[in-house]
Amino acid sequence: MKWWGWGYEDAEFRANLHPGFWPYAKSVLDIESDDFARRQWSLASIELPEPRADEPFLAKLRTSLAPSQITDDAKERVIHSYGKGFRDLFRLRRGVAAGAPDLIVYPESERDVCLTLRAAAERDIVLIPFGGGSNIAGCLERMDAGRMCVSLDMRRMHRVLAVDRRSFTARIEAGVFGPDLEAQLGAHGFTLGHFPDSFLHSTLGGWIATRSAGMQSDKYGKIEDMVIAVRMVTPEGVLQTLVVPKSSNGIDVNHICIGSEGTLGVITEATMRVHALPESREVQGYLFPEFDGGIEAMHQCVSRECMPAMVRLNDPDKTALSLAFRPPTAGFTKIAGRLFKTYLRAKGFAQPRTCLMLTAFEGSPRGVSQRLRQAEAIYRKCGAVGLGAGAGKSFEATKYDFPHIRDFLLDRDVTTDVSETATVWSNIGTLYRETTTILRAEIGKSGVRPWAGCHISHSYPCGASLYFTFGFRQQHGQEMEQYLRVKRAVQQSFIDHGATLSHHHAVGTEHLPWLAADISPIGVRAVSAIKQGLDPANIMNPGRLLPSSIPQA
Amino acid sequence: MKWWGWGYEDAEFRANLHPGFWPYAKSVLDIESDDFARRQWSLASIELPEPRADEPFLAKLRTSLAPSQITDDAKERVIHSYGKGFRDLFRLRRGVAAGAPDLIVYPESERDVCLTLRAAAERDIVLIPFGGGSNIAGCLERMDAGRMCVSLDMRRMHRVLAVDRRSFTARIEAGVFGPDLEAQLGAHGFTLGHFPDSFLHSTLGGWIATRSAGMQSDKYGKIEDMVIAVRMVTPEGVLQTLVVPKSSNGIDVNHICIGSEGTLGVITEATMRVHALPESREVQGYLFPEFDGGIEAMHQCVSRECMPAMVRLNDPDKTALSLAFRPPTAGFTKIAGRLFKTYLRAKGFAQPRTCLMLTAFEGSPRGVSQRLRQAEAIYRKCGAVGLGAGAGKSFEATKYDFPHIRDFLLDRDVTTDVSETATVWSNIGTLYRETTTILRAEIGKSGVRPWAGCHISHSYPCGASLYFTFGFRQQHGQEMEQYLRVKRAVQQSFIDHGATLSHHHAVGTEHLPWLAADISPIGVRAVSAIKQGLDPANIMNPGRLLPSSIPQA
Repeated sequence: MKWWGWGYEDAEFRANLHPGFWPYAKSVLDIESDDFARRQWSLASIELPEPRADEPFLAKLRTSLAPSQITDDAKERVIHSYGKGFRDLFRLRRGVAAGAPDLIVYPESERDVCLTLRAAAERDIVLIPFGGGSNIAGCLERMDAGRMCVSLDMRRMHRVLAVDRRSFTARIEAGVFGPDLEAQLGAHGFTLGHFPDSFLHSTLGGWIATRSAGMQSDKYGKIEDMVIAVRMVTPEGVLQTLVVPKSSNGIDVNHICIGSEGTLGVITEATMRVHALPESREVQGYLFPEFDGGIEAMHQCVSRECMPAMVRLNDPDKTALSLAFRPPTAGFTKIAGRLFKTYLRAKGFAQPRTCLMLTAFEGSPRGVSQRLRQAEAIYRKCGAVGLGAGAGKSFEATKYDFPHIRDFLLDRDVTTDVSETATVWSNIGTLYRETTTILRAEIGKSGVRPWAGCHISHSYPCGASLYFTFGFRQQHGQEMEQYLRVKRAVQQSFIDHGATLSHHHAVGTEHLPWLAADISPIGVRAVSAIKQGLDPANIMNPGRLLPSSIPQA
Repeated sequence: MKWWGWGYEDAEFRANLHPGFWPYAKSVLDIESDDFARRQWSLASIELPEPRADEPFLAKLRTSLAPSQITDDAKERVIHSYGKGFRDLFRLRRGVAAGAPDLIVYPESERDVCLTLRAAAERDIVLIPFGGGSNIAGCLERMDAGRMCVSLDMRRMHRVLAVDRRSFTARIEAGVFGPDLEAQLGAHGFTLGHFPDSFLHSTLGGWIATRSAGMQSDKYGKIEDMVIAVRMVTPEGVLQTLVVPKSSNGIDVNHICIGSEGTLGVITEATMRVHALPESREVQGYLFPEFDGGIEAMHQCVSRECMPAMVRLNDPDKTALSLAFRPPTAGFTKIAGRLFKTYLRAKGFAQPRTCLMLTAFEGSPRGVSQRLRQAEAIYRKCGAVGLGAGAGKSFEATKYDFPHIRDFLLDRDVTTDVSETATVWSNIGTLYRETTTILRAEIGKSGVRPWAGCHISHSYPCGASLYFTFGFRQQHGQEMEQYLRVKRAVQQSFIDHGATLSHHHAVGTEHLPWLAADISPIGVRAVSAIKQGLDPANIMNPGRLLPSSIPQA
């Protein structure tokens, strides 16, 4: 894994495969020069604090764990110091790794987790559970420099332990990554149906701890809808729930583990609802002449219960970005594309307002074609024209590549990041317009040209998620403050307009200042009380979910 | 409302409208005599403890509330002393109302609730939120005789405050009863879709506090699936959540209110997901030659995503009871019935194994007929014959009457009650057989003939609910112990076989001894911690959700 960017070391954004992208970025971000020296990232340049070493704690670990399960290797410490948000990557690229843990432990069983927690509790040592390290809300950095800090990397606990074919459930270790999980379930003919943008680089435990959502949540639900039972090792013992479909057993303690962001314990395994692998899958693209028409189409699909498995509606700016991101097209397609453009113009589609929608339908061939027919009738009534399966294929081919753009732009002194939220249908238009205006104005305050785009996805009967992407040229020497001002303005707009602080990225440190406004001060008190009860010594990922901390540069 | 039985004073089980019932009961329960004096229930016979009166508390209430909002009327105290379980009704009929509150307060606004809580906290007075009083798990009786106790009757907070047509949500006060709620939502063209057996006598707040399930949960979900946001007044302040479809805001505090059983505060309102009133509704009956065939049919409907809105599959004994409960049929139907019986016998249906299934389909006329066709094809493959809409109509006409049977039988020295649970599909057969065997054996131990029946309902992708009904002649002088032994055996069987303590009746006092086995001791610790944080003086419904208490005779 890269320590200076997204994903594996051999994967990156290749400008030659997306020839339209950099010219587009230069034009919308007002960049004149191409003169950016390609940086060589050198681990040696990172100021890594000397690791604290509590000898009695280490001695205990060494008696129970293999040497390969414990490391204070510099590169591993750097990789485990942060997630992958702008703040994280920017700091590492400047040689700052103050969030680095002193040690990394790789448990291979729940027993290993239990004994590490016990040893840590005895010696007042901080533990931060670590899945894929892809979080972008600041969930992973150490907040408490006064105590020794251990990152508990769960990747070695990656087995599907049991599949109950008749009940559509699977018992799964929490450290499994998306592709490995789907391969193991696929061998039984099942899928979890959870495909977040971070799919390649995130784990089941991370998804549960952060209340993650996959692209196809419209069909399969958010991760909290898939959890049947959990096991979570806390400093006070193992919290475990029964494998039952539903219950009336008082307060649902599954929901105490879900979203706990590492603050209460380590999720070691979960029994998840799984689905038969869909026989058929159709990904299609559509263009709408206006954003509102696309929203109306999504709403009508929800009202008439013909939602696709996935729907992603880009606003005009996000549409322009998507088109710029496209791979180059071959001769014939180019000509067809020109003809299509003429046709669109004749139909009244005007470039600056046109919106791209991508949908996926999954299930039995008959069910898919039926639902697709129903949905397309709605789309057409709302003014859409179909782009066919080509647009869908192009999306499928690159759907996990988007986060690499940030590294490419960081190399070019451009800051980009995202903020996402959810609201009810009646509020989507207002929230979208107001937040976009605020976002652009805030970026503009530092004297640079703003770029802001939004897509709507994850539709529910009552509302949907709005996902804002923004970018701007960096003010030299002010990069972090510039970023934080923009990020704060967006988050404040969410709360001011009745929307939630995040739909699927977690609270972390970046969204913590808005937690009390979101769940109310008494809600925060309830969360603190649980923390007190299960982790009285505050060794588990301290500084999260309790809004005494605010994000630090 | 009756204080000695289920429902309103003018409603009861009328044997002449169900002429087959009493002969059936006599035969299966081994009752020879018809000689049961009809008791006259007299309030005067009830030993009601002198009400405690904390003068400073009362003075505070009187300055803020109208006189009509406060009462210590004897009849009201008796009605508010218990729910409607066997233990409750049996005690009241013996003149015992030790659970009676000292006072009943009827708040008319959240302000009234807040000031009552504040006054109670100041004077260390116990508050028990009271919705419809229909709970049968022992949620409502006072457990703490040492302090003054107030029942907070929520019935006057019964308005639908706002409907968001575009977002399919409604903001609703918690004290509204089922029929009133459906009438108010119906005026807007909406339904909540929540129809528990107690529908006529239970409230939104009660449903949320106990994690209730309606008959049509297969389509509309359990109550926890319908809650978008809540407001709960706690002794520490008001917990409130945002009206958003989904979030990643840490631990979901909606789920701290849901299932809290009155122990943390008073739910004053909730924003609920609502649905357009279905254009079409079909209720149908089917007979299966064996219980297993019916279970297989339910499972296949779930696997192929053609679940009805409601499905209720009776085992052979519950089927016999349902047939005995039927209203008398007219001449022609009688003849048709005889012909049908002959036909069934020819098809290999044998009376002692035949099982009745009732289903409801709701939605657009096309959607209903499509799904019905799909489901019926599955039913037929599993050996079913259709009974047509007549069986459905008969079920619809009497669906809320069933609980009246208990009063009728109590009058005849027969104890009846229910225990329900949920488990995964792979465990349903074993759980059903083992629990039925244990239940019959336990009843038999007191030397009386056991009657035990079960229906399976509330189907989910991963499993379903099993609802056991049991009855037996009372052992004179031993009635309560006899009941508790049976109830304990059933509950223990649930836990021993990996099933939950209740699917929708709550923990209360009756299921409390199994809470730690269900949610694990650490789960209980989490719940206790929340209680500590939000109700440090333990004034809210003390003795629940914390397994220090066990059910007392």
